[in-house]
Amino acid sequence: MTDSPADLVITGCTVLVHDDQERVGFEENATIVVRDGVIESVTTSPESPPAVEHLDARGQVALPGLVNCHTHAPMVALRGVAEDLPTEEWFNDVVWPIESNLTARDVELGARLACAEMIRAGVTCFADHYFSMDTVASVVEECGMRAHLGEAYFSSQGPQGREKSLEFALRHRGAAGGRVTTALAPHAPYTVTDDDLAATAALAREHGLPVHLHASENRDQAETSLERHGVTPIEVLARTGILDADVLIAHGTGILDRDLPVLAGASGRVAVATAPRGYLKFAWPTTTPVGALRDLGIPVGLATDGAASNNSLDVWESMALTALVQKSTTGDPRWLTSRQALHHATLQSARAVGLGDTLGTLAPGRRADIVLVGLTGPHTQPVHDLAATLVHSARSSDVRTTIVDGRILMRDRELLTLDVAEVVRELGRRMPALLDRGHGKRIQDYDT
Amino acid sequence: MTDSPADLVITGCTVLVHDDQERVGFEENATIVVRDGVIESVTTSPESPPAVEHLDARGQVALPGLVNCHTHAPMVALRGVAEDLPTEEWFNDVVWPIESNLTARDVELGARLACAEMIRAGVTCFADHYFSMDTVASVVEECGMRAHLGEAYFSSQGPQGREKSLEFALRHRGAAGGRVTTALAPHAPYTVTDDDLAATAALAREHGLPVHLHASENRDQAETSLERHGVTPIEVLARTGILDADVLIAHGTGILDRDLPVLAGASGRVAVATAPRGYLKFAWPTTTPVGALRDLGIPVGLATDGAASNNSLDVWESMALTALVQKSTTGDPRWLTSRQALHHATLQSARAVGLGDTLGTLAPGRRADIVLVGLTGPHTQPVHDLAATLVHSARSSDVRTTIVDGRILMRDRELLTLDVAEVVRELGRRMPALLDRGHGKRIQDYDT
Repeated sequence: MTDSPADLVITGCTVLVHDDQERVGFEENATIVVRDGVIESVTTSPESPPAVEHLDARGQVALPGLVNCHTHAPMVALRGVAEDLPTEEWFNDVVWPIESNLTARDVELGARLACAEMIRAGVTCFADHYFSMDTVASVVEECGMRAHLGEAYFSSQGPQGREKSLEFALRHRGAAGGRVTTALAPHAPYTVTDDDLAATAALAREHGLPVHLHASENRDQAETSLERHGVTPIEVLARTGILDADVLIAHGTGILDRDLPVLAGASGRVAVATAPRGYLKFAWPTTTPVGALRDLGIPVGLATDGAASNNSLDVWESMALTALVQKSTTGDPRWLTSRQALHHATLQSARAVGLGDTLGTLAPGRRADIVLVGLTGPHTQPVHDLAATLVHSARSSDVRTTIVDGRILMRDRELLTLDVAEVVRELGRRMPALLDRGHGKRIQDYDT
Repeated sequence: MTDSPADLVITGCTVLVHDDQERVGFEENATIVVRDGVIESVTTSPESPPAVEHLDARGQVALPGLVNCHTHAPMVALRGVAEDLPTEEWFNDVVWPIESNLTARDVELGARLACAEMIRAGVTCFADHYFSMDTVASVVEECGMRAHLGEAYFSSQGPQGREKSLEFALRHRGAAGGRVTTALAPHAPYTVTDDDLAATAALAREHGLPVHLHASENRDQAETSLERHGVTPIEVLARTGILDADVLIAHGTGILDRDLPVLAGASGRVAVATAPRGYLKFAWPTTTPVGALRDLGIPVGLATDGAASNNSLDVWESMALTALVQKSTTGDPRWLTSRQALHHATLQSARAVGLGDTLGTLAPGRRADIVLVGLTGPHTQPVHDLAATLVHSARSSDVRTTIVDGRILMRDRELLTLDVAEVVRELGRRMPALLDRGHGKRIQDYDT
């Protein structure tokens, strides 16, 4: 503690905390002190130290900012263009022909709209896997969010794809005052060859970079891989060395029982991102096997995927749906509980994006990524069980204030770093050209 | 059209309309004129007639108010008291012991909080099935909502239960200036004897009253009924004459193939209310068979059930979940579409509560139950497919204004007829006594 005023003090709130067993609990009437972007203290002392900025958060709950562990943020521009379709038609007939036309400016506008949506939904960090990622990095720098970014590539792009992904990861690592971390981002085992995956694994080891990719997205992919190659996508990750790097696997709803010992044997840190809304919408037969992954100690972070399939970047909804869908698919109403859902939303999501030591809990020394949630709405009253209120009654629209690295990005629902109306206007002007699929080319087929 | 000013004119909005095939569409830049609680016209004429009240709704979408087709509104007081439990434990060990202690004042406060929540979520009408319903009727009168009310009864209450249900239905029918309609409300075939159901059916015919009850709520109930009695709950409804009345069946996730011809043979108007969130949360193995019911011409309305299981009265969420869960459980991403979900939310829900001729679509002669939805939030932009935007991107919190019978109950998110803070304060004072389950008595067991 120094004598100078703190940068930010939040008083009067209930704080979500983790005990030494990582169990989720709540401390009432707490004060959070932030200095230099870091949480200095969380106390129930009635004394509030001097501060440059003071937030009176009585009646509000402070949570670690949500993390969107797998998305394609700029795809908000395509929200609603391909509805009620099977995955293959959705991608091959509509999304990819449009995506292959996107300019860097389109991606930039999409990223800006996506960041506005996420800040308003209490998301402070997102793991993005897309193209033209330089523009996404600059939007992150500008809007104040935290992000884990990877330039996606397919083997169809030739060695340039992989090289560009590496170059991006090295150049942006630690950018935006440390708010940007990076990953190598091969698309998936069915679009990237084993040789390219092996080369990626070697680059990951050489440069100390994690890998973020899609794998075993659904049961069909796993079964097709088994039929064609005699191995599952997870086994491909093992034999190409990807599982010896730190790896973030998107979806994994096709992870089979035979994959579990393979994942258990990984020498890298493995995590999975689950985006349950899209699995329902595409009518996939299974969801991410969260319980089996828990038994292996593999963190499962919450995600939305892109808004062209999920229709929003609402991680709060992913939290509720993860609880509901796990109950429904396991047939066990006791799994998973609201407190477990909050554990996924906090520590497990932070770990999934490689930030388990700096984010995920509101404790001294952690980065000050904080959201304040109001519970005065009739839909969140009365509060008999705060964890249940947060997961099953509250909505992302109940987030009042969003803070990253101690900087307020939204105050009482007002965005402070982005101009949504301006973005929507320009995006609207660009849309007719974008939606003209006559120019759409397929540089690859989404064919499992 | 008279020369006097209209009561309410809404200009500049996009209006959800139904064509003569009941297909959902949208008319842009429309004007809605309301007089004497009724929609006088919906036009795209640029002229706005003189009006006592004018709402400039540019950038907003006008929809028929949502209908919560099955709830126990006062149970919001128990939101979160029994979490992550199987249905039987939830009810027998926690909910019923508390419910059996509820006073009329508790029910009144719960109803007031529930109405506040529903108005804020764009719900203009609810079908309630509970106890102390006189108090609910008076809250409806006071707050301006529309409701379809039934005093619930079990056979364990003796004949007085049924008589009270009838007396309530007759006394309140047409109350609150016609905003209250009523139903006979036996609890369910497993808690009401065949004799009582047959007597109820006779009363329904004699008095021209509909019946609202739980039946075949889940697969277990259907199978237990078959084992014990050799008939399904739906077959019980048929043989007791309930299906010769107009009947609203809550849930029906246990409706079996053998029930379909039975439902097809009903001489009364049959409808089903689906509340999909609770089915996921209780880990029930099936959901309402919406497709099979559609093939029979049986309307399926949207519902939330009580907030002690659903955790909210968010019918907007029920709309999205109905689309998602139908896709997931049928394995077909094309069923059901956003437009179909909007059809359930509008005409089918109005029919489910017996108001298919007066509500459900924004057309001349219909009651003026209207909600205005704002789409300026980044999570609803851009709009490529308005039906998808409404179902999959918008949230209940995007409802700006709620109107019933031409009266504005919420304007730009401000509730005009209810004081939430006052209700929450009094409910808070009463909670400790309510939650003391030491006094809880079981007047019946929830044992299928």
